Amino acid sequence: MAQKKYVYSFKEAHEAHLGKEILGGKGFGLCEMTAAGINIPAGFTVTTEACTLYYESGKKIPDFVWDDIVAHVHAIEESSGKVFGGAKGKTPLLVSVRSGARQSMPGMMDTILNLGLNDEAVEELAEAANNERFAWDSYRRFILMFTNIAKGWPRTDMDKMLDELKEQNGYKLDTQVTTEQLKDLVKRYKEYYKKTFNEDFPTDPYVQLKEAVGAVFKSWDNPRANVYRQMNGIPYEWGTAVNVQTMVFGNMGEDSGTGVAFSRNPSTGEKKIYAEFLQNAQGEDVVAGIRTPEHIDWLKDHMPDVYKQFEETIKRMENYFKDMQDMEYTVEKGKLYFLQTRNGKRTAAAALKIACDLVDEGLIDEKTAVCRVEPKQLNDLLHPTFNPDDLKKHSPIFHGLPASPGAGTGHLVFDADEAKAEHDAGRKVVLCRAETSPEDIIGMVNAEAIVTARGGMTSHAAVVARSMGKCCVAGCTDAIIDEEKKTLTVNGKTYTEKDVFSVNGTTGEVYEGAIEMQEASMGGNFGRMMAWADKYRRLKVRANCNTPEDALNARKFGAEGIGLCRTERMFFAPERILNMRAMILSDTTEQRTAALERIRPFLMGDFYDMYMANPDTNVNIRLLDPPLHEFLPDIHDEENIKELAKQLNVTEQKVKDRINQLHQANPMMGFRGVRLCVAYPEIYAVLARAIIQAAIKASKELGHDVEPEIMIPLCGEFKEYEWAKKVVDETVQDEMKLEGKTLVYHVGTMIEIPRGALRAGDLAKDAEFFSFGTNDLTQLTMGFSRDDSGQFLPYYYDRKIYEFDPFQTIDVEGVGELVKIAVERGRKTRPDLLIGVCGETGGDPVSIEFYDKVGLDYVSCSPFRVPLARLAAAQAAIKHEAEAEEADPVNKVKKFLKIKK
Amino acid sequence: MAQKKYVYSFKEAHEAHLGKEILGGKGFGLCEMTAAGINIPAGFTVTTEACTLYYESGKKIPDFVWDDIVAHVHAIEESSGKVFGGAKGKTPLLVSVRSGARQSMPGMMDTILNLGLNDEAVEELAEAANNERFAWDSYRRFILMFTNIAKGWPRTDMDKMLDELKEQNGYKLDTQVTTEQLKDLVKRYKEYYKKTFNEDFPTDPYVQLKEAVGAVFKSWDNPRANVYRQMNGIPYEWGTAVNVQTMVFGNMGEDSGTGVAFSRNPSTGEKKIYAEFLQNAQGEDVVAGIRTPEHIDWLKDHMPDVYKQFEETIKRMENYFKDMQDMEYTVEKGKLYFLQTRNGKRTAAAALKIACDLVDEGLIDEKTAVCRVEPKQLNDLLHPTFNPDDLKKHSPIFHGLPASPGAGTGHLVFDADEAKAEHDAGRKVVLCRAETSPEDIIGMVNAEAIVTARGGMTSHAAVVARSMGKCCVAGCTDAIIDEEKKTLTVNGKTYTEKDVFSVNGTTGEVYEGAIEMQEASMGGNFGRMMAWADKYRRLKVRANCNTPEDALNARKFGAEGIGLCRTERMFFAPERILNMRAMILSDTTEQRTAALERIRPFLMGDFYDMYMANPDTNVNIRLLDPPLHEFLPDIHDEENIKELAKQLNVTEQKVKDRINQLHQANPMMGFRGVRLCVAYPEIYAVLARAIIQAAIKASKELGHDVEPEIMIPLCGEFKEYEWAKKVVDETVQDEMKLEGKTLVYHVGTMIEIPRGALRAGDLAKDAEFFSFGTNDLTQLTMGFSRDDSGQFLPYYYDRKIYEFDPFQTIDVEGVGELVKIAVERGRKTRPDLLIGVCGETGGDPVSIEFYDKVGLDYVSCSPFRVPLARLAAAQAAIKHEAEAEEADPVNKVKKFLKIKK
Repeated sequence: MAQKKYVYSFKEAHEAHLGKEILGGKGFGLCEMTAAGINIPAGFTVTTEACTLYYESGKKIPDFVWDDIVAHVHAIEESSGKVFGGAKGKTPLLVSVRSGARQSMPGMMDTILNLGLNDEAVEELAEAANNERFAWDSYRRFILMFTNIAKGWPRTDMDKMLDELKEQNGYKLDTQVTTEQLKDLVKRYKEYYKKTFNEDFPTDPYVQLKEAVGAVFKSWDNPRANVYRQMNGIPYEWGTAVNVQTMVFGNMGEDSGTGVAFSRNPSTGEKKIYAEFLQNAQGEDVVAGIRTPEHIDWLKDHMPDVYKQFEETIKRMENYFKDMQDMEYTVEKGKLYFLQTRNGKRTAAAALKIACDLVDEGLIDEKTAVCRVEPKQLNDLLHPTFNPDDLKKHSPIFHGLPASPGAGTGHLVFDADEAKAEHDAGRKVVLCRAETSPEDIIGMVNAEAIVTARGGMTSHAAVVARSMGKCCVAGCTDAIIDEEKKTLTVNGKTYTEKDVFSVNGTTGEVYEGAIEMQEASMGGNFGRMMAWADKYRRLKVRANCNTPEDALNARKFGAEGIGLCRTERMFFAPERILNMRAMILSDTTEQRTAALERIRPFLMGDFYDMYMANPDTNVNIRLLDPPLHEFLPDIHDEENIKELAKQLNVTEQKVKDRINQLHQANPMMGFRGVRLCVAYPEIYAVLARAIIQAAIKASKELGHDVEPEIMIPLCGEFKEYEWAKKVVDETVQDEMKLEGKTLVYHVGTMIEIPRGALRAGDLAKDAEFFSFGTNDLTQLTMGFSRDDSGQFLPYYYDRKIYEFDPFQTIDVEGVGELVKIAVERGRKTRPDLLIGVCGETGGDPVSIEFYDKVGLDYVSCSPFRVPLARLAAAQAAIKHEAEAEEADPVNKVKKFLKIKK
Repeated sequence: MAQKKYVYSFKEAHEAHLGKEILGGKGFGLCEMTAAGINIPAGFTVTTEACTLYYESGKKIPDFVWDDIVAHVHAIEESSGKVFGGAKGKTPLLVSVRSGARQSMPGMMDTILNLGLNDEAVEELAEAANNERFAWDSYRRFILMFTNIAKGWPRTDMDKMLDELKEQNGYKLDTQVTTEQLKDLVKRYKEYYKKTFNEDFPTDPYVQLKEAVGAVFKSWDNPRANVYRQMNGIPYEWGTAVNVQTMVFGNMGEDSGTGVAFSRNPSTGEKKIYAEFLQNAQGEDVVAGIRTPEHIDWLKDHMPDVYKQFEETIKRMENYFKDMQDMEYTVEKGKLYFLQTRNGKRTAAAALKIACDLVDEGLIDEKTAVCRVEPKQLNDLLHPTFNPDDLKKHSPIFHGLPASPGAGTGHLVFDADEAKAEHDAGRKVVLCRAETSPEDIIGMVNAEAIVTARGGMTSHAAVVARSMGKCCVAGCTDAIIDEEKKTLTVNGKTYTEKDVFSVNGTTGEVYEGAIEMQEASMGGNFGRMMAWADKYRRLKVRANCNTPEDALNARKFGAEGIGLCRTERMFFAPERILNMRAMILSDTTEQRTAALERIRPFLMGDFYDMYMANPDTNVNIRLLDPPLHEFLPDIHDEENIKELAKQLNVTEQKVKDRINQLHQANPMMGFRGVRLCVAYPEIYAVLARAIIQAAIKASKELGHDVEPEIMIPLCGEFKEYEWAKKVVDETVQDEMKLEGKTLVYHVGTMIEIPRGALRAGDLAKDAEFFSFGTNDLTQLTMGFSRDDSGQFLPYYYDRKIYEFDPFQTIDVEGVGELVKIAVERGRKTRPDLLIGVCGETGGDPVSIEFYDKVGLDYVSCSPFRVPLARLAAAQAAIKHEAEAEEADPVNKVKKFLKIKK
């Protein structure tokens, strides 16, 4: 039996079809670039299996493995003409020795650079690089690194030697240390090494290498790596590979240099190399910004052969990786090396163009193109933005949560009515509020942007702003907003209504002064991408719309119906709110019904408009949800209480008593949702009647029947749902009889209470649809009030307890389990149950992937998120299809056979 | 093969060992009484199988079944000497025909009384009863009932005939109708019957009976029965049995009569018959209260033979049913019949005495005795009560929720400080508050009773009152309490501090004026019962105690340690609250730590006292839980804000800013619990240090080590728990090192967030115990705020959506599922995980049964509930042991063989 192989050059590794489990992540990447025919610095990988062997052999590298390592070094020497350890007149071969586990463990394990330096090699390096100081500094660093990493000795003393030298000479920077001083330091380092280990610093590069490889293997077992593995569930048994790779230098003379390159323009997506080059320099010089790189044309003009190779390589790279690449490259003495490549970051516009172009070029198929665009980037294309040039001239004065994307500029106002007045007078305003309430909507509609001091990403202000596509920054904890004094104070400076602010809802930054705006533009690539997305997605996408304007927007963005139409806002318009208040102050069912009946014609009109704005798809209307106190003045608002008492011809005390009676200690968990209907069935009855009336009218007008969906919020118990459904059914039947017209209609419930999710099997007995209200479900499952979580969640992010906002992205482990339970139990009772989600997470790509996986029928999100959701749904479907294919036993066998071939 | 039997006399049924599934519930009860040798009116049961046969035969009673029914009627005639259908000079045999399903379906099915009456029999009945009017009224009612029930015809017309007759004669009551008029009405009823059905009213009693039996079978399929079955999950296939039983009359002369009897005194438990007798009367006469019954001695004196039989029967009944019986009996012409018996309701004292006596008499064993006392009744024995005689003289003026049992009387006060001042001055007060806050504790301590306008059974006031054993009535929605004006207004009448009220926390009733009190007394039976309970229970019982006084009370009541010691109240004492506020107003960790360190000595003292008050068992201390704003003045409380600013030497604006910053929209789900520690670890560190310091000091003092349990509240995520546990561990280790003393200590978490329950498998990785906080877990799982649920839960009870308060009794279907999940997942990770419950439901018998079933280790409740919990835990253990025995296959076979024998 042939001896098992433990060392592979990058090329050998590719030919052997080895994977990450043998090569580690870094080794695999190098092997891929080799496969792509990219000229990378030569090198080899010592496999993870060698690591296991190392430990099994009592922390020793077995001879036959070591022999193979040496053989691979020789092979590099041969192909490069460089000499390991240096030889007179020859460029010395220096190598890096790096760990590389199957899964990336950043910073957990060790790296040694410039290995191979000794007193001879350093001279040759100085000559080759034409830079004596560089060579000796490299040597100094190598000794330090070797002592510290390979020998595991603290670097304190050696650092101290350098510090003292700098102090004695009054240097501030390492770069001020002279070559002679470095030579002296090298000498002293070696003396220190000898004193410490009672042996000379190894001049034999193979001795250095053997120590270094062993050290990397040993680092797999160091305490911080063990903790990291524990935290991330990485098995100890995996071991790490070691990658040994030639070091190349761009600072070896006029025929050397270094740079970065994008294979296409990352801003526009234009198919043209976008690169820079810095002659006779190292990567660090580019990063440090000491010198300014040249345009890539410089290379074309001065080193045409290299440039040609450069162009060809980039093309090959794109053809291999089939995506726009972001690369680092070095020219060492006229020879081009690519050190690294990765898929390049790009703007939304560029992402669309590149994906479409790659399809046209036949490099990728439509499904791949769909997966190439980050859904969240689409937002940038739908909202106005600041002119980037003008933006550069401003710095933000404070920031908050990026609650609703876009940009807006205007003078400050602190009151909703004032916002409207100013807007009507043709002036642009930024509405500043401590926090917003439903009565602020009129102000939000008329503002360019909204800024709030309190509230999270899913606070009232944020939710409403997103649904309007209005820019909003919420939870600006540094800002103190005094609504009465009409001032905004930040860092001790106070602003008033005279001041103009600019607000970036995409980043959460707020600026003083006006910044120029630019409008959103949607190119043809956008439409093309959306069409592909629609072709491949399984999930339907609906929109949350409260007004006909929302509905029109949603249609424009491709929504397939309305997943949530909230009715509460319909009660706030001036001609209705007084009757709503009269209803709340009533003492009998008759009084309540009479007051509600006065509102009904308005509601009917609103619903009719919704149906007409959405003629081809379903409209899901949610019956009244918020607690009634939200419709009454605040108990401390003497003026409005007095006014209301007068209007309704009751005593002020009566108004106050009712406000007090309806006071909610925890409104989120209070007297709201279906509970209103259990107490006062007439409220839901009037809404149901208005809905069906509107639907009948719209059906006649449209010439085809609309199919109303009526949603009962906040159900946790079947009998509670039944009660409300009976109220709805009886009213609807009665109204249809009165009108002499029968429509198909559907009644269902939101699942937003943990108990509702647990009892889903019951609820589905009589609910035709479920709609997950993930905002409330998350609040209750996690016990977080979304309005209050801004006070503590930042600490959670700081401490890495939670890493994302669970109101934005569904908490799969907790809330997600309840979603899964509800889907399973609901469908068990009623296999054709229609299931969607209408919470904030319905517009989040990560969440959408989850919803696709658990088999929801649709997601519903704010109109401006619809394109994002369509794309994310397509990506999810493509991913899950691929996973299913992967898991298919037939395909597994096929794949196995292919690998064996 | 013998013809299957479908008709059984009560005696035959007993001999055949038939059960409820064949006889129905009522039939089985009659058969049991027969078995006990009780003289009940003769009769028989037509089985549920006959019902099935009836439907299978196309809604016909098969001939062979009918023949058997007739044979059983003949048997009754023979043994009674009565004649079915009547015969000259003979007492007519009248029967009742009643449905009786396997499971009681009250009011869902039909009953026909006095069957067997016709023109002849009515005359004989008149003679036998010596009451012509009674006979004709019975006849009239029978025709009406037969027409309505057996023939399924609406009774409207027949009711109208009676109404018109009364109207014409100016009668108000049915009893005013004369015999002649009744005779005429019977005539007209029969004419109406003939007109309606085109046939004469059946005079043949067998025709009547056949129709009636069929009608009862048919009623199984009536719409209301179907709905009831659907709602209660009763299978349609079960069918109903029919019971035919002789009617007996106590109004047949001087040698007849009727009465009720208890086999022992239901008030005291004394072993002496407690009964009444009413000569020549029917049951209705007793109920109507027209005549006053005689003491049972009357029967002894006047009908000594009957009395002797009566005494013997009651003794036999007790021997058979092995419990105190509550019976109805009738003497018909000197012959004694028992119509009904059931286990008698009794006072707590009587329940204890009877159970103990029955054990001494050898009738029941200890386990049975333990199950004979309703745990909730024990409450009556632990608290002072009103003198029943004095209580009779008062009527309540309003009522609320019986939030904490007991009784109290005193003049009204509206302010906590005033309560203390009055108490110190030796005057008794009733504290009235709109709702209570933690700052009211001082008032609650010093009041005889507490009354609040808002808040449910688990509001702050209720929870605190119960833990103190202080009488409290909460959520008095009819009362308007104006704390500023110091008035309580109810039904338009306004009371002030001058008025004296008496409050019954057991019933929720509030009285004007003082009612005499009587102290609680605990007899020897109480101790005996508790000893038995302790012998048979599996669950440990701990107490929720916040003060050493609580802990002493808890020990007195038999608590086995403290399941919950809340730390928040410790910060409210005058010498601490200012430092707490200074901590909250701090800007840096150093400032916060400094302020907390000033409180630490006090905390240490409190914890030391807790350990000393509880030297033998564990004390579980919960780290700070409530949101910080609870420690600051209300934002509208200008005076206290000013004062605080002055005390802390900061601006008023700073205080206000912090109050505003800490404002919680939904405090229950806000910045509280472990979240405080994630933000400000120093808070938990100081508490942990004080706990361990106190534990070390107490250990030294006691001469043995105490074992602190430190509980982290509100965890929903493992990393969050880990963060807090690390804070605790580091501090504890540091303090133990400082003190040079090592103690065993335990850290665990409350499970009170649905996510915590779902992630219990994770949490148990590093939590040594779980304690279910069912108050919060219920709030979050059901989405109910307990402070607000008083606004809507009453409607839920009215509409039978929920039938109990989920904060009092665990909602098994919803919250209970999460408890089960958490227990399973927690124990899977850590099999020896200690699991308890410290929410309100920990002291509720139904919930305790559930906790025993799912395998919790202990329940913890307020000290006054400890005896109740001990008893309930014993009952649960006994029940579950019996169920396990029942389910044991070996026992199943044994039982089967015994029945076959």
